Amino acid sequence: MLTLHNYFRSSTSTRLRCALNLKGIRYSYRSYALLKDETRGEDFLRLNPAGLVPVLELDDGTVLSQSLAIIEYIDETYPTPPLLPPDALGRARVRSLAYMIACEVHPLNNLRVLKHLSSEYGQDDTGKATWFRHWIDQSFPAIEARLRYENQTGLYCHGESPSLADCCLYAQVWNNSRFDVVMDDYPTIARIYEALDRLPAFRDAAPPNQPDAF
Amino acid sequence: MLTLHNYFRSSTSTRLRCALNLKGIRYSYRSYALLKDETRGEDFLRLNPAGLVPVLELDDGTVLSQSLAIIEYIDETYPTPPLLPPDALGRARVRSLAYMIACEVHPLNNLRVLKHLSSEYGQDDTGKATWFRHWIDQSFPAIEARLRYENQTGLYCHGESPSLADCCLYAQVWNNSRFDVVMDDYPTIARIYEALDRLPAFRDAAPPNQPDAF
Repeated sequence: MLTLHNYFRSSTSTRLRCALNLKGIRYSYRSYALLKDETRGEDFLRLNPAGLVPVLELDDGTVLSQSLAIIEYIDETYPTPPLLPPDALGRARVRSLAYMIACEVHPLNNLRVLKHLSSEYGQDDTGKATWFRHWIDQSFPAIEARLRYENQTGLYCHGESPSLADCCLYAQVWNNSRFDVVMDDYPTIARIYEALDRLPAFRDAAPPNQPDAF
Repeated sequence: MLTLHNYFRSSTSTRLRCALNLKGIRYSYRSYALLKDETRGEDFLRLNPAGLVPVLELDDGTVLSQSLAIIEYIDETYPTPPLLPPDALGRARVRSLAYMIACEVHPLNNLRVLKHLSSEYGQDDTGKATWFRHWIDQSFPAIEARLRYENQTGLYCHGESPSLADCCLYAQVWNNSRFDVVMDDYPTIARIYEALDRLPAFRDAAPPNQPDAF
């Protein structure tokens, strides 16, 4: 069986759990407490020298890292249901929406950056939340505009079935709730999030529903 | 002809120029001065509401954004030479190396973040360079370790032909030189960068060789 090395509250882990659940792939869950720097331990660094979750370990011991690379891999090797559309332009759209979150929002707002703001720039919880919301304010209006005005948007980010972009969106919006982001200005994103949250694959991947949640 | 909306010093633009050049795709070059906030103007925001370069405009006016999504698109529609390996595990490796830069390094070190550190956290050029190098120190050792010890590494990041990962690596290492990053601890990365820099496709994509360079 596959082993998922991850942490309940890690947004990149949540993305990957959504994808695994959508594909109906069973996996063994292994948790690393980020707050205790458990991904900086020797055992984990042997798996992934970057010291970052998630990591997916295949049956033969092959180790895959970087959530989006893993999702593309499982989409290629477990094709049903597909997480990318059949046409190249559709795939470009889904990937670009995914990367608007994965390359513009999440990297600035994850735990290691917030820790660094605290240790090096003296930011307390209020200061860290201000930073977090600043980057949401910088990026969510454009995501909302695309989802609202582009006619490929459906019940989900792209048409009527969940995609790579939805995995990223769901994880990020869940994360936003921890920093009191007001979603009123993002009604399309909020509507898609609610639709995703009704799917067992997403709901079961949410942080509070993981074995290491507290 | 395709139109590339970009800026000479933008690292994500450099990535995409490398890929376009590797494919031998001709394009019309349109520049937006980031320092003058030209991507925040109405004309550009109509192309991309995120206000970020690069954007690739196709012949029929279709607009693609997010450098990695565009590179995957051109790799699918102009298959030769391929920028991803033929096997799923190889593709996962190349993508994961690319995302180690695109999702862990570059988002923290681009112009808008450095500007924000200056305006909101009072960081001068020295402070901004310290921040830049901190995130290189956090991420480059793992990239170096993977490239040094994984046996799929060849003349380039993955075997003997340049890939998506090399486009990201080349652009990032070029960018590092602006912030006095010492590359002595990263001999494998430096070796691959030098090999890439000997290829006209990469050299021609480098910031100093663009029409808007100053």
